[in-house]
Amino acid sequence: MRGGSLKRWNGWGDESVSLAVPPAAARLLEARIGPGAPPKDAALADVVAGAPPPRLAPGRLVTTDAETRVRHARGQSLPDWIALKSGRLGALPDAVAYPESDADVRELLAMARAGVRLVPYGGGTSVVGGVNPAPGDAPVLTIDLARVNGLLDLDETSRLATFGAGILGPDLEAALRARGYTVGHFPQSFEHSTLGGWVATRSSGQESRGYGRIEDLFAGGRLEAPSGTLVMPPFPASAAGPDVRQMILGSEGRLGIVTEATVRVTPIAAREEVRAFFFSGDERALAATRALAQTRLPLSMLRLSLAEETESALLLAGAGPTARALDAWLALRGVKAGRCLLLAGASGEEAPVARALAAAEDLVLSARGVPGPAALGRRFLRDRFRGPYLRNALWDLGYAVDTLETATTWEKVPALVAAVEHALSSSLEALGERLHVFTHLSHAYPSGSSAYTTYVFRAAEPDATLRRWELAKRAASEAIVRAGATISHQHGVGSDHLPYLAAEKGELGVASLAALARVFDPAGAMNPGKLVP
Amino acid sequence: MRGGSLKRWNGWGDESVSLAVPPAAARLLEARIGPGAPPKDAALADVVAGAPPPRLAPGRLVTTDAETRVRHARGQSLPDWIALKSGRLGALPDAVAYPESDADVRELLAMARAGVRLVPYGGGTSVVGGVNPAPGDAPVLTIDLARVNGLLDLDETSRLATFGAGILGPDLEAALRARGYTVGHFPQSFEHSTLGGWVATRSSGQESRGYGRIEDLFAGGRLEAPSGTLVMPPFPASAAGPDVRQMILGSEGRLGIVTEATVRVTPIAAREEVRAFFFSGDERALAATRALAQTRLPLSMLRLSLAEETESALLLAGAGPTARALDAWLALRGVKAGRCLLLAGASGEEAPVARALAAAEDLVLSARGVPGPAALGRRFLRDRFRGPYLRNALWDLGYAVDTLETATTWEKVPALVAAVEHALSSSLEALGERLHVFTHLSHAYPSGSSAYTTYVFRAAEPDATLRRWELAKRAASEAIVRAGATISHQHGVGSDHLPYLAAEKGELGVASLAALARVFDPAGAMNPGKLVP
Repeated sequence: MRGGSLKRWNGWGDESVSLAVPPAAARLLEARIGPGAPPKDAALADVVAGAPPPRLAPGRLVTTDAETRVRHARGQSLPDWIALKSGRLGALPDAVAYPESDADVRELLAMARAGVRLVPYGGGTSVVGGVNPAPGDAPVLTIDLARVNGLLDLDETSRLATFGAGILGPDLEAALRARGYTVGHFPQSFEHSTLGGWVATRSSGQESRGYGRIEDLFAGGRLEAPSGTLVMPPFPASAAGPDVRQMILGSEGRLGIVTEATVRVTPIAAREEVRAFFFSGDERALAATRALAQTRLPLSMLRLSLAEETESALLLAGAGPTARALDAWLALRGVKAGRCLLLAGASGEEAPVARALAAAEDLVLSARGVPGPAALGRRFLRDRFRGPYLRNALWDLGYAVDTLETATTWEKVPALVAAVEHALSSSLEALGERLHVFTHLSHAYPSGSSAYTTYVFRAAEPDATLRRWELAKRAASEAIVRAGATISHQHGVGSDHLPYLAAEKGELGVASLAALARVFDPAGAMNPGKLVP
Repeated sequence: MRGGSLKRWNGWGDESVSLAVPPAAARLLEARIGPGAPPKDAALADVVAGAPPPRLAPGRLVTTDAETRVRHARGQSLPDWIALKSGRLGALPDAVAYPESDADVRELLAMARAGVRLVPYGGGTSVVGGVNPAPGDAPVLTIDLARVNGLLDLDETSRLATFGAGILGPDLEAALRARGYTVGHFPQSFEHSTLGGWVATRSSGQESRGYGRIEDLFAGGRLEAPSGTLVMPPFPASAAGPDVRQMILGSEGRLGIVTEATVRVTPIAAREEVRAFFFSGDERALAATRALAQTRLPLSMLRLSLAEETESALLLAGAGPTARALDAWLALRGVKAGRCLLLAGASGEEAPVARALAAAEDLVLSARGVPGPAALGRRFLRDRFRGPYLRNALWDLGYAVDTLETATTWEKVPALVAAVEHALSSSLEALGERLHVFTHLSHAYPSGSSAYTTYVFRAAEPDATLRRWELAKRAASEAIVRAGATISHQHGVGSDHLPYLAAEKGELGVASLAALARVFDPAGAMNPGKLVP
């Protein structure tokens, strides 16, 4: 089992990594939403002991070990956390399979015909319920791709690398680094998510502006489905009809299992740098970010924290001792209330990186922005995957944290952010509970931007916490739909976003997904309850 | 009717534009494949007089005028030309409709339920049989989008423009130019093709490297289908499942009619420049082109003519008086036999364009290339849409010209080009006929390239000419499939490439397309015989 005892069974990441909530951040939360009450979490041993008996038998590739089943029962959504922390897991997989080859996968997929439901499992980091067994009478087999994880081919002439799709982010980058290359795909889940999972969920990385989203990086590969095998050749482009690769991207296990993926690689960047800038007020910051996004400057990242997030993020990052120095620095330069932090990154050869960042700085200055301390940019790169660990620490203080994200055209971005934040902030009024809500733009495009909103509220008994989440999530999702934005820019659909999918895909779009599912999986055995109604 | 009497009914482009084949080019062809015999083409009046009676009645939106039907019977493939030139058109549409609104289109689509077959028609420039009525007992209505052609919205904040999809390339660019923007999509058919046609065929433009292929430019829009209406919102990105927009791109009228398209626009380029470089021999030229394609230089175009094409193209372009000067210039710089012409273009703001071209030149020089005369680059921009007019002139000399194009990864490009050229060159040996064959790379990507091959052979009686084409086309298509390349990089599938589609889409891919067609068009009325078997 990958990660083994090192991976938290009921929280984020490696057990060896713990972050603390800085006192100033805790004070902020207490002032905004009230004091948290530390929870009483269930113990793994008790949950394992209470696992229902499996309805599948173990076999060559298949284990029914109760701890393994528990560790594959849920992803990383807040409802998943509530289930895991309380020990009330609901449906468990009846068994977990570890195939080692395409032939193994095909052997397992044949069980679809015998009435078994199959859940493909990459790194288990879904935050939308993507790996959870749907409750029901049919037994569930979770297929963990952990052992399908090799570098199968590196075509240096064409700059294409082919991997077993179960490879984890760090292993993929390490294998390429040894040969002088990188894929450059760095979602926040990077350390625990897999290449196949990135493809199946249309993942986006922190530097997608430079390296491309997974749609751009995934050149081709292999899908094993109950109906057969689909090979997607890695053509640089094709006009031979609709792109089948694009039907697999985002298919969330409903069409089959991505076993092999060929990705575009580039030489390791000689220089990678992130610079911090500050603006006074959301409006000015948004205008500057849009202007930067609409240049052709080869920036690999643009990430704008709006004012509320900037304040919270600086506190949560524990910028304690330096916070006052930063205040003074910014005040001297005219940035006082409503300061917004923009991070702009570039990656590549020395000269173009230097030039792109200098040009970005010129544009920022002309938009009345102020360069921030260089340390902020360096800290982003150092801590780029540490954010989710704060969820563990906040939970232990009695606070539940969730994030949601969307995207729309620039014209609609301000109204979208306002609507989502308002919907969340007022969602628990009837319960007398408050939320702390803040937003950043994680990905800026020429035509629009993503908006990534974090909301924190007090946890309580499991059912009450879940109820709070349901109210908040529904309010935000309905606001997103009303604002004419996508229900997900990077997290996917899973089960949590399913009720809102038809609003953007339309009746014909949803019918298309269902028709594709019938082609690849006539028995409807693949990851039921996700993506396709 | 768009273009009216100005558009050739049985050849390429405007009747007012005629190019001559330069004598040196004619001599080359005669030496390579023998003298041509000028053909006897049918007269439009005779063909119109012989049109079979229509099986549909005229109506508010629908005409059964025989000349209009003849002018919509065929596209621009070589088999289409043979049919038009000989006057043996085969199937004609029974009527042609000119809808002016979405409601009109929906009214016409309702005829699918009454057993009428519907052929969506953009500019009629398909070179793969994409607009030809399939023969059969059911009446055929061709739906010409010419009157659905307005600029409906320009969102300058988000840099998105929405058009009626029937708008022609020059009209689209003129409407945007008046507002300071461009789409930058310049397929060779630009003057006579439409936005909706670009979307439906996954079109690629000469500067797609800079502005993006139509997949990148088409942000969203509206499709009217027999089953209903599909609205595709123009999100900058989304992870909400497979991208329905990507199912419409390349759907070639099988799923419905694109009536509205929202495209990404950018400010008009302050500077647009193309530079010419020469290399000795294909191998060196290919290596340099690949190196350029794998940099991140913001070049908008890379177009490499291999040695055989370079010689023919210079002769066909009528570089007569300057040809000797060019020979001398190149010889002085060490480029003698096997010279290959590389055109590298950039487009955008002054400084980045200058920097990109200078960096490209540095790379070319280090790859032992030689800068060519500046006039060659200027001439490309001036004559960028004139190439197809040479087909008219060559036909009049008794020569049939066809082109085909494919794409694969860089590692496979040399073998692909050799295999396709060999297959074509030897395809008519049994008939005692020769072919003149040459290739350029029209689009270079980091992971691979397109390869665009022109072949010329002697025309004869219509059946004999068609037979020659069939033999050559089949030999080339089979070579493409064997080489592991796509059957089309930019022309589409239509009916001509249909037999080769399964080789790259796989059984599940083809079944997916068929399943989508059943969702959008349960009666199978839309453009039958194209794309989906």
